[in-house]
Amino acid sequence: MNVILGGKSRHYRTVSFDSQRNEVELIEQRLLPHEFKIVRTKNFRETAAAIRDMVVRGAGAIGATAAYGLAQGAQAFRGSSLEKFSAHIENVFQVLKNARPTAVDPVNAMLDVRRAMSAGETVREQQALAVAAAEEFANEDVEHCRQIGEHGAGLIHDGMRILTHCNAGWLAFVDIGTATAPLYAAQKNGKMFHVFCDETRPRCQGATLTAWELAQQKIPHEVIADNAAGHLMQRGEVDLVIVGSDRTLGRTGEVANKIGTYTKAVLAARHKIPFYVAIPLSTIDWNLKSGFDIPIEERHEEEVLGAWGVAGKGTRSRRSYVRIANPGSSARNPGFDVTPPELITGIITPVGVFKPKQLWKHRKQLGG
Amino acid sequence: MNVILGGKSRHYRTVSFDSQRNEVELIEQRLLPHEFKIVRTKNFRETAAAIRDMVVRGAGAIGATAAYGLAQGAQAFRGSSLEKFSAHIENVFQVLKNARPTAVDPVNAMLDVRRAMSAGETVREQQALAVAAAEEFANEDVEHCRQIGEHGAGLIHDGMRILTHCNAGWLAFVDIGTATAPLYAAQKNGKMFHVFCDETRPRCQGATLTAWELAQQKIPHEVIADNAAGHLMQRGEVDLVIVGSDRTLGRTGEVANKIGTYTKAVLAARHKIPFYVAIPLSTIDWNLKSGFDIPIEERHEEEVLGAWGVAGKGTRSRRSYVRIANPGSSARNPGFDVTPPELITGIITPVGVFKPKQLWKHRKQLGG
Repeated sequence: MNVILGGKSRHYRTVSFDSQRNEVELIEQRLLPHEFKIVRTKNFRETAAAIRDMVVRGAGAIGATAAYGLAQGAQAFRGSSLEKFSAHIENVFQVLKNARPTAVDPVNAMLDVRRAMSAGETVREQQALAVAAAEEFANEDVEHCRQIGEHGAGLIHDGMRILTHCNAGWLAFVDIGTATAPLYAAQKNGKMFHVFCDETRPRCQGATLTAWELAQQKIPHEVIADNAAGHLMQRGEVDLVIVGSDRTLGRTGEVANKIGTYTKAVLAARHKIPFYVAIPLSTIDWNLKSGFDIPIEERHEEEVLGAWGVAGKGTRSRRSYVRIANPGSSARNPGFDVTPPELITGIITPVGVFKPKQLWKHRKQLGG
Repeated sequence: MNVILGGKSRHYRTVSFDSQRNEVELIEQRLLPHEFKIVRTKNFRETAAAIRDMVVRGAGAIGATAAYGLAQGAQAFRGSSLEKFSAHIENVFQVLKNARPTAVDPVNAMLDVRRAMSAGETVREQQALAVAAAEEFANEDVEHCRQIGEHGAGLIHDGMRILTHCNAGWLAFVDIGTATAPLYAAQKNGKMFHVFCDETRPRCQGATLTAWELAQQKIPHEVIADNAAGHLMQRGEVDLVIVGSDRTLGRTGEVANKIGTYTKAVLAARHKIPFYVAIPLSTIDWNLKSGFDIPIEERHEEEVLGAWGVAGKGTRSRRSYVRIANPGSSARNPGFDVTPPELITGIITPVGVFKPKQLWKHRKQLGG
C-alpha cells in the first residue's frame, strides 16, 4: 500500500526481496506509527533475527519473510556439492523456523519453497527456483488479500461507519491485508465511509498500526477506547464490523482472534449490526472440533499494567514503556478469545463469503 | 479505609477537617497510585483550587470537601456583623461552587450547611453550626456507604470472582465507597474472594485507583484489559459484577456510568452473571424520562490517543503523558454510557436492594 513521506505517496510492500543484492527489505514495524523506516537484512541470520525481534509481525508477513530468508540463504551458498547445499538449506530452515517457534506460517512458506527447489538438478538451478518460489509465495499472499477485498467491498456503502479491531491490515501481510482489504477495495470503487479503530488494549495495534495504515491511505477514521464501541452501537453510530482472525475452525465456524473480538461480536449481535471476519485460507484449522480446545496464550502482565508511547506530541523517537497501574498489583492478560458462529454474519475469504457453519460443507473449495 | 505506609496500616478518610487549625485534609489523588500524600488547604480558596484541580474527585468526596470548605470560610470570618458575614458566606459559596461548575454534589452539600447555619443567631453560633453540619454531611456519606456495604455483602460468597469497572471506591467518597462497599463488608465478614479490575480506558481509574484501594485492604485482585472481561465470562471465570453509577433514572431504572459499563452489562446478561449497581441516593434522578436524554460528555481526544504513567517500575514520581496512537489520527471519547434496566440484576442502595424498574414504586423510601 501507499506510504506518505515528505508529502508524497509511495508504494511499499511490508516485505520484499532484492535478489541482486540478496537482501530482504522490511518495514521496521516496531517504530510505527511514530517513524517509518525500511531495514535491509544482509543474510538469513539477520532475517531470522528480524522475525524473532518482531521488526516484522503478522501471519502472512512472517511467512513471506521466512520464504525470502530461505531463498537468501540458498543464494549465499558457494560451491556445487548438492549434498553440502542440502545440509546448508536444512540449517537455514531450522534457524528461520526457530525465530518464532510456535508460528505455523513460516514453516508452511518454507516447505513450499523447498518443494519447488527439489525440481532443480544443480545447486544453481535450485538457487534460482528458491528465489522464484519465494517471490511466488509473496505474490500469492497479495493476490489472496486482493480477492478478499473484491469479495468484501460489496458490503460497504456510501456513508457507512465501520468498526475494526486490532490490526489485520497490510502490515500483517505482504500487502493489502485481510480485515482492511474490503476498505481499500471500497475506497478504490469511490465509496466514502468512516472507520472507528478500537485502540485494542493492551498492545494497541488499532491505535498504532491500523490508524497509521488508514492515515496513509487517507481513509477518514477515529480511534476509540475499546470501552466506547458499545455506546456508539447503542446510539446507532456503527453500521458494520470487520475483523481478522488468527485461527478459524473449519468444522464449527468458531473464530479465534485478538482479545476483545468476542465482546464486539456480542455487542454487534445485540444491535443487529453485521459482523464479518476476513481470513486467508491458511488460517482455517480443519482438525479441531471445539473452540474450547484452542489454547489461549496468557501473555506477560506488563502489557496490561502499562503502555508504550512517546513523550510529547508527534515526536519521532522510539516508544518507551510507562507503568499505568498500581505498582503493587498484578494482571491477567489473555491474548485471544473465541467468537462462536451464531454471532458472525459472514466469513470473507479469497474464494467468496460464507456463513461460518458452511465452511465445512465448502471445504474442498476452501482448500480443506 | 486503611493505607499501608512503611509496612503499617493506618486509617484515612479521603477528606477530613481539622477544625482547630481550620484546615481541610485531602488525599492528593493525582499522585496515586504511585505516591501517597496528604495535602492541607489553609483557606477556602485553596480548598476550591483542590476541587478544581482534581486533587480530590468523586461525587461524595467533592461534596464533603465543599461542605468543609464552606465551614472553613465561615470560621475564618473576623467580626460580629451578621450582614457582612452573610455576604462573606455567599462569596465563599460561589467560589467553591465555581470550582466544578457542572457538579451537583458540592452545591447540595453547601445548601445543607447553610440551612443548618440559619438556626444560629450570632456569627459565632453560625460558625459553630457550619462546622457541625459539614462534619455531619461527611459522616452521613460514610454511613450511607456503610449501609450499601451491609445490603450488598450478602451477594458475595467464598471463592467468588467479582468484576468491577472504573472506581466507585472510597477515594470517590469520604470513606468505604459504593461499588467497593460490599467487597469491604464481605471481607470484614471473613469472606475470601478475588476481584478483576477493568483497567477502564481511557483514564484507567480501575488500574490506578481501584487496584490501589484493593491493595491497601489486602483484597486479592488482578487488573485486566477492558477487552478481557468477555473472554473471562465465557470461560466461567466471573461470578458477579458490581459497578457504581453517576446518574440513575428513578423513573426508568436506566444507569449512566463510566464508558464501558454498558458493554460489561451486555456480556454479563449473555452469560447469566448477576450484574449489580451500587449507588448513594443522591445520584438518583427523579425527573428525566429516558436514558437517551442524559447528555453524554465528549471528553478530550488526548485521553484516548495516549496514557498517563511513570517510566520504569514503581518509580515514586509524578505521572507523565505518552502518546500511543498514530500522530496523524484523531479520536472520539464519550465519557459515559447508559445501561438499560433489563440488563441490571439489582440496585444496591443504603436502604436496600431494588430491581431497577421498582425504584419509582419505592421513591418515598428512596428520598424521591
